[in-house]
Amino acid sequence: MNQVNQRQYKVGVLGATGTVGQRFISLLAEHPFFVIHALGASSRSAGKPYSKAVNWKQTRAIPAVVREMVVQECVPEHFKDCVVVFSGLDADVAGDIEHAFRVADLAVFSNAKNYRRDPHVPLIVPLVNTSHFSIIPQQQRLHAPPLRKGFIVTNANCSTTAVVVPLGALERAFGPIESCMITTMQAISGAGYPGVPSLDIVDNVVPYIPGEEEKIEWETLKILGGLAHADDDDSGSGLLAFDMHAAQPLRISASCTRVPVVEGHTECVSVRFARRPPPSPQQVREALQAYTSEAYSIGCPSAPRHTVFVHEEPDRPQPRLDRDYQAGAGVSVGRVRQCRVLDIKFVVLANNVAIGAATSSIINAEYAVLKGIVSATAA
Amino acid sequence: MNQVNQRQYKVGVLGATGTVGQRFISLLAEHPFFVIHALGASSRSAGKPYSKAVNWKQTRAIPAVVREMVVQECVPEHFKDCVVVFSGLDADVAGDIEHAFRVADLAVFSNAKNYRRDPHVPLIVPLVNTSHFSIIPQQQRLHAPPLRKGFIVTNANCSTTAVVVPLGALERAFGPIESCMITTMQAISGAGYPGVPSLDIVDNVVPYIPGEEEKIEWETLKILGGLAHADDDDSGSGLLAFDMHAAQPLRISASCTRVPVVEGHTECVSVRFARRPPPSPQQVREALQAYTSEAYSIGCPSAPRHTVFVHEEPDRPQPRLDRDYQAGAGVSVGRVRQCRVLDIKFVVLANNVAIGAATSSIINAEYAVLKGIVSATAA
Amino acid sequence: MNQVNQRQYKVGVLGATGTVGQRFISLLAEHPFFVIHALGASSRSAGKPYSKAVNWKQTRAIPAVVREMVVQECVPEHFKDCVVVFSGLDADVAGDIEHAFRVADLAVFSNAKNYRRDPHVPLIVPLVNTSHFSIIPQQQRLHAPPLRKGFIVTNANCSTTAVVVPLGALERAFGPIESCMITTMQAISGAGYPGVPSLDIVDNVVPYIPGEEEKIEWETLKILGGLAHADDDDSGSGLLAFDMHAAQPLRISASCTRVPVVEGHTECVSVRFARRPPPSPQQVREALQAYTSEAYSIGCPSAPRHTVFVHEEPDRPQPRLDRDYQAGAGVSVGRVRQCRVLDIKFVVLANNVAIGAATSSIINAEYAVLKGIVSATAA
Amino acid sequence: MNQVNQRQYKVGVLGATGTVGQRFISLLAEHPFFVIHALGASSRSAGKPYSKAVNWKQTRAIPAVVREMVVQECVPEHFKDCVVVFSGLDADVAGDIEHAFRVADLAVFSNAKNYRRDPHVPLIVPLVNTSHFSIIPQQQRLHAPPLRKGFIVTNANCSTTAVVVPLGALERAFGPIESCMITTMQAISGAGYPGVPSLDIVDNVVPYIPGEEEKIEWETLKILGGLAHADDDDSGSGLLAFDMHAAQPLRISASCTRVPVVEGHTECVSVRFARRPPPSPQQVREALQAYTSEAYSIGCPSAPRHTVFVHEEPDRPQPRLDRDYQAGAGVSVGRVRQCRVLDIKFVVLANNVAIGAATSSIINAEYAVLKGIVSATAA
Repeated sequence: MNQVNQRQYKVGVLGATGTVGQRFISLLAEHPFFVIHALGASSRSAGKPYSKAVNWKQTRAIPAVVREMVVQECVPEHFKDCVVVFSGLDADVAGDIEHAFRVADLAVFSNAKNYRRDPHVPLIVPLVNTSHFSIIPQQQRLHAPPLRKGFIVTNANCSTTAVVVPLGALERAFGPIESCMITTMQAISGAGYPGVPSLDIVDNVVPYIPGEEEKIEWETLKILGGLAHADDDDSGSGLLAFDMHAAQPLRISASCTRVPVVEGHTECVSVRFARRPPPSPQQVREALQAYTSEAYSIGCPSAPRHTVFVHEEPDRPQPRLDRDYQAGAGVSVGRVRQCRVLDIKFVVLANNVAIGAATSSIINAEYAVLKGIVSATAA
Repeated sequence: MNQVNQRQYKVGVLGATGTVGQRFISLLAEHPFFVIHALGASSRSAGKPYSKAVNWKQTRAIPAVVREMVVQECVPEHFKDCVVVFSGLDADVAGDIEHAFRVADLAVFSNAKNYRRDPHVPLIVPLVNTSHFSIIPQQQRLHAPPLRKGFIVTNANCSTTAVVVPLGALERAFGPIESCMITTMQAISGAGYPGVPSLDIVDNVVPYIPGEEEKIEWETLKILGGLAHADDDDSGSGLLAFDMHAAQPLRISASCTRVPVVEGHTECVSVRFARRPPPSPQQVREALQAYTSEAYSIGCPSAPRHTVFVHEEPDRPQPRLDRDYQAGAGVSVGRVRQCRVLDIKFVVLANNVAIGAATSSIINAEYAVLKGIVSATAA
Repeated sequence: MNQVNQRQYKVGVLGATGTVGQRFISLLAEHPFFVIHALGASSRSAGKPYSKAVNWKQTRAIPAVVREMVVQECVPEHFKDCVVVFSGLDADVAGDIEHAFRVADLAVFSNAKNYRRDPHVPLIVPLVNTSHFSIIPQQQRLHAPPLRKGFIVTNANCSTTAVVVPLGALERAFGPIESCMITTMQAISGAGYPGVPSLDIVDNVVPYIPGEEEKIEWETLKILGGLAHADDDDSGSGLLAFDMHAAQPLRISASCTRVPVVEGHTECVSVRFARRPPPSPQQVREALQAYTSEAYSIGCPSAPRHTVFVHEEPDRPQPRLDRDYQAGAGVSVGRVRQCRVLDIKFVVLANNVAIGAATSSIINAEYAVLKGIVSATAA
Repeated sequence: MNQVNQRQYKVGVLGATGTVGQRFISLLAEHPFFVIHALGASSRSAGKPYSKAVNWKQTRAIPAVVREMVVQECVPEHFKDCVVVFSGLDADVAGDIEHAFRVADLAVFSNAKNYRRDPHVPLIVPLVNTSHFSIIPQQQRLHAPPLRKGFIVTNANCSTTAVVVPLGALERAFGPIESCMITTMQAISGAGYPGVPSLDIVDNVVPYIPGEEEKIEWETLKILGGLAHADDDDSGSGLLAFDMHAAQPLRISASCTRVPVVEGHTECVSVRFARRPPPSPQQVREALQAYTSEAYSIGCPSAPRHTVFVHEEPDRPQPRLDRDYQAGAGVSVGRVRQCRVLDIKFVVLANNVAIGAATSSIINAEYAVLKGIVSATAA
C-alpha cells in the first residue's frame, strides 16, 4: 500500500484506548499517508505509554509505532500539529471535547453520535454522500468567531451505514425510494467493550437496542436527502440546509436486534420505489454491482473497489465469511428478489467496526485531504 | 396435570427416533390421557428396544415407559390399536407412510409437510384454526373407498406457527390484515439433527433457509383463510374448500434467517390492517393478551392458558428466557409499537420444537378426542 | 412437592436481586418447608416491591409469592423472624453483613467466599462433608459474647463443588487420594451478571479465572480433610480443627478456563490413589454410582437421589444435556478410564448455579433443620 | 513475500475441494515459490472448473488463479509435472491414492492420518523434528521397486501439533520430559465440514473426540523420539528406526474435548522433567521464547519467526485473539507456572487449520525443496 513520495499527514486519535480508537490505530498504522502523531484518552490513561494504557482487544498485535507513544489528555494543545483528528470518544464526553477541538481550529472526523443531528455538521457515509462536505465552509463561517480550519464531520451509526449504501446506490439508479422496512441482526462488537453481557447473548437474540431504530430512521433521511440553498425561504438567508429527503418523503421502519455474532451487521431490507413500474431484481443487482463511490473514483486509498459486492449464491452474505472482504470497507448484498408487500427485498451485510465505524471516518478524512478541504500542512 | 378417572387413549409415534419423535415421546410420557402404545421407525431401528435404537438428544432422560419398548417398522398393522398416530416422519418418507396409515383407517396427526397443501387435509395450528377440523368428514367421504375413521391432520411449519398465532388473534379482534412483513431469526433445532453444521452457524447468521419463506407465505393464507362450502361455484358441488384468505387478499412477505440459538424462533413482524384507522399499539396489546384459543376453552390439557403472553419490558421476548414459558405451548409477543411503513410492528417468539412442532400435533389430537372426531375406543 | 402437615420455616434471602439471590428465590418458592419471609438487598433496592427492584434473568417467571414483597436493607432487624438466612451477597459486602447477622443470633447459610477460610466456619458441600456441622457449637461458644443460635455455614465455590463430590465418593470407597489434576471448562453464569463480556467469550476460550485455581486447590483440602479435636497439641486446648487432609497429604493442581456455555461446569479430572494397586475403572464407576450422601439418607428434600450419575456413553456428560438432571442437584460423571500418568481419569459435570451455588446452601439448611442444628422455631 | 528471481515449483493439491484442500489453495495462491498446477478431487468434481466444484467456506475469496482451473481425478498422470503433491484427502481414500502417487515417483506431503504410523514414513511437525526427513532415502530404497523421487511425508494431527511444539522446545533446553498431562479444548473446524452438528456444540462442551487422545499419546512419542540406526540389534540390519522416545520413557495422558470455537485449539498442559530440580517457570518462559526451528533458520518462507510466542498477560492465549498471529504458523503459550502435581503447567494455543494442518505440510515441502530432498525440477 505504501506509496513512494507520498506526502504524509499527521493525525491524532481521541478515545485511543477504546474499542473504536483501537480500530483507528490498527488502520492508521498501515496508512499510506496518515501518520499517527498523538493519542488522546481520559486522564486515567494520560501519561502512560499506549501499551500500558490500553486493554488491547484486536486480533492484530498493537502496532509498533504506538506501543511506546505516551497517551495525552484530550485537550487541543497536544494535537495542534495534527492535520486531522479522529474521534472515537464515548458520547458522554465527545460533545464537549470535539467542540473544543473545533474551536481550536482542528479538523475533527468523529464516529460519535453527538453532532450527527447538528444542522451545520454533515453526516457522511463516504460511499454515499461526500457531496455533503459542501456545508463545511458554512459551518466555519457561522461559527463565532469564524473558523479558519476547524470543523466537525461525523459518520453514521453502524447499522445505518449498512443500509444506506445500497439505498443510495438504488436511488442513484432508479430515483427516489418511497418506503423501506429494515430488520437488523447486529453484532456484539457494535456495543463496544465490555458492552453486551455474555449471559444476555449466548444462545439468545435480544430484540431491542436502545435508540438504534430511531438512529436508522433519522440518519438515513439526512444522508440520502438533499443539501441545498434555502433560496425560497422567507428569511432569504440562502443558507445551505439538509432537506431530510423532503422532496420525496421517505418512510423508514427499522427493527433492531442483537445476535451472537462477533462482527458484521446483517440486515434484511425491503424497499418500495416511487417509480412505477419498479426495477426488476436483475436490474437492482446490476445497479448495485455497478455503483461506484466518488471516494473511490478520486483515489481515497481506503475506499473499496467494489462499493457493493452482490452475491449470487442464495445463502450469502454471511457475517463470518464476508465481513472481512475488502478489509470490511464495502458492503455485501445478496438474495435480491421481489417482495410481495413492497417492491424488492435483499440482505445487506456491513462490517460494523470497519465501514460501520473507523473506516468511514478515515475515508472521509482521505476525501477531505484529496479535495483540499483540510489545510494540507503536511507533516 | 394427571386427572383421576380419566379415560386413557393408546397412541403411536411414527419417526420415533428422530428429533420430533423424541419430543413427542417426552411430552406423551407425561400426558394425562394419551398412553404410548407403539413406536415406529425405519427398518434399521425396528426390532430394537427404543433406548438402543435412539440417539437421544433431549435434556430430560428417556422416559422409563419407552426405554424397553420395541421399535416397529412403520406399517399400520403394528399400530391398529392406536386411537391416534403421531407422525414425526421425515418428508422423504412421510407421504407414503401417512397415506398407508390413513387407508388403514387410522387417525394421523402429522408434523410433516407432505399433506399441508392437500385441498382436503386441514393445516391446523391449534391455537388458531381448530374450526378447520370440519373438513375431516369430507376428507373421509371423498376417499376411495370412503374412510370410517382414518384421516390426516397436519400442523404448520414452525416459523409459520409463530406468526400465525398473533395474526389470528389480531384478525379476530380487528378484522382482516392486508399485508404483513416478517423477518425470522430461527433456531438451529428447527433443522433437526444433525441439521445445521456448526461451522455454518457459530459466530454467524445464515440469511437463507430453503423453502421456508414460501412455507410462511402459503401456509399462513391457508390457516387464516376461510373454509366454506363452494355453494356458488359453477359446479354446484357444495364441497368445503379453503379460500386462502381470498375474501380479503393478504400479501405476506417473509425473510428467513438462521441464528446461533438452540431453541426458539424470534420473528419481527409488521402488519397493515384493512380497517382504517388501524388499532393503536395499546389496543393491539390488549387484544393479544385477551385472546383465548378454543382448544384451551374446551379443556385441551396441553393448550396454554395464555395463548399470547404480551411483554411490557422493551427487550423481550428473548428465546433463552422465554421459550420454556408454559412448556413452550404459547407464544410471546413484545415491542408492540407503530410502524412507519405499515401500521403496527412487534416481535413474536415461539418454541419451534414445542408449539412449533410436537405440541401442536398433540393439542390437535386432544381437540379431536374431546370433540369426538377420533373414535374414542379407549385403551 | 408440597407435603401435608409439614412444619414451615421462615427464611430470608440476602442479596435477593443478584444472580444467586434470584436462584435462591426460584428454588425456595417451591420448597416443601421453607417459606420466604424477607428479602434483603442494597439500599438502592430497599423499599421497592421485588418485581420492581430486580432485573430478573431466570428462565422461570418471578414467583408470585415474592412479586410484591418489599425488599429490605440487609440489617438483622428485618430478618429476626427467620429461622434461616441465605446469603447470595457479593464478596465486597458479605463479610460485614453476614457477621452482623451472626451476632444478631441468626443462622446464616452463605454462598459467599468471605468466611470459607475461617477456622471456625465449616465449608460444607452437602453431598460430601455434612459431618463438618459438628464445629458449629464451638463457633458459637468461642464467639464473644457466645452465640445461642447464630452461626455461619458456607458452601464451596462452584468449580470446587463439581470435583469434590466424586473425590469424596472415591475416598470413601478406596481411601486417600494422593494427587489430583483438574482442568475446568466453566460456564459464563459462574461469573454472575453482567459478568463475562460477550466479546471475551463468543467464539473463544479464556484460559484464566482470577483466584479460581487457588480456591479449588485450597477448598478441596478443607472439605475432604478431617475435623478433629486437637488433643495432642501443646496447648491442650482440645478444640476442633480442620486438618486440611494432613494425615495423607493431597496435592491438587487446577487449571481453570471459561468457555461459551451458559450453565454447567465441565471438568477433566485425573487422580492417583495412595492405595496400590489402585482401583480399576470399573470399580471406580461402581463406587461412584453407589455413593449416597448422608443428606439424602436423612431426607433432605433437595438432595439428589443419585449423588453421582455415571454415564456409559463415551461422549457424556455434556453441559447442555445433563445440567438439569435432578434439577441440577447431583453431579454427572463419564469417561471413567485409566490415566497413563496418574491412575484414573474422568469427566465431571455440575450445574454451577444449582449444586454449585444456591442448591448447596439450601440442602445445608435442610440438613441443619432435620438435625436440629437450627432452632426450630417454626413459622 | 514475493521474491525476485525465485525459482518456481509446480505443485498439486489432492482433496482440493475439502476443508483442508481449500486451506492449501488459499495459502499456495500467495506462495513465493510454489505454483498451483493441478487440483484433484473425487470423480463427482472432476471435469468442473474449481469454482463450480467447491463449496468454498474460507473467509478469503477463491484465489483467481484457481477459479477456472479444471479439477482432475486423483490419479498420478494428471500430476506428473508436479514437484510436490499436497494431500488433504479424507482418511477413507487417502491410503490408496497416496500410495499410488508415491509409486508414480511423486513426492507426497500429506495431512491425512493413514501413513502416520508407518515405520518408514516420517511424521514431521516442521517446527520440531525436520531431522526425521533423514528416513526418506530408506523409504525410497526399501520400496519395491525402489523409488527415485517418490515418497510420503505426513504431518501430525492438529491437537498433537499444538502440544509437541512447546514439548520439543522444552526437551531441547532441559532434557527429557518424563510425563505430560494434556486437556484439550478443540475448535469445531478440526472436524472438517459438515463436521460437528451445531446442536451438539452451541452452548455446550463435548468431552470426547473419537481417536483423538490415542493420536496425541502415540504421535507425540514418534515426533519427540529419536530416529537412529538400529546398529546394535540382532539382525544387524542397520536400518533407521523411530524409537518412540524409548531412551527415556515418556508417559502422556490426554483428555480431549470439543468447544464452541471456530478455529484454534487451546490445550492445558502439565509436564514433569527427568532432570531434578526441574527448571523454574521463568526458565521455561525464556527457553520457549528463545526456541527457533530449523525450518525458520534455513529460510522456509512459511515458518514463523516466533516459533513459540510467550504471553505475559495472565489471560492469554485466547483462540479468537491469538489464532491469526503470524498467519497461524506459530504457537502461543501463556500462564507458565508451577504445577503442584507435576513440575510446570502452561496453556498452549495453535491454529488447527494453519500450523495444525495445511501450513505444516507446506513448511515441510519448503524444507524439502531448500534441502534438495525433492528433485528440484523447476517449473
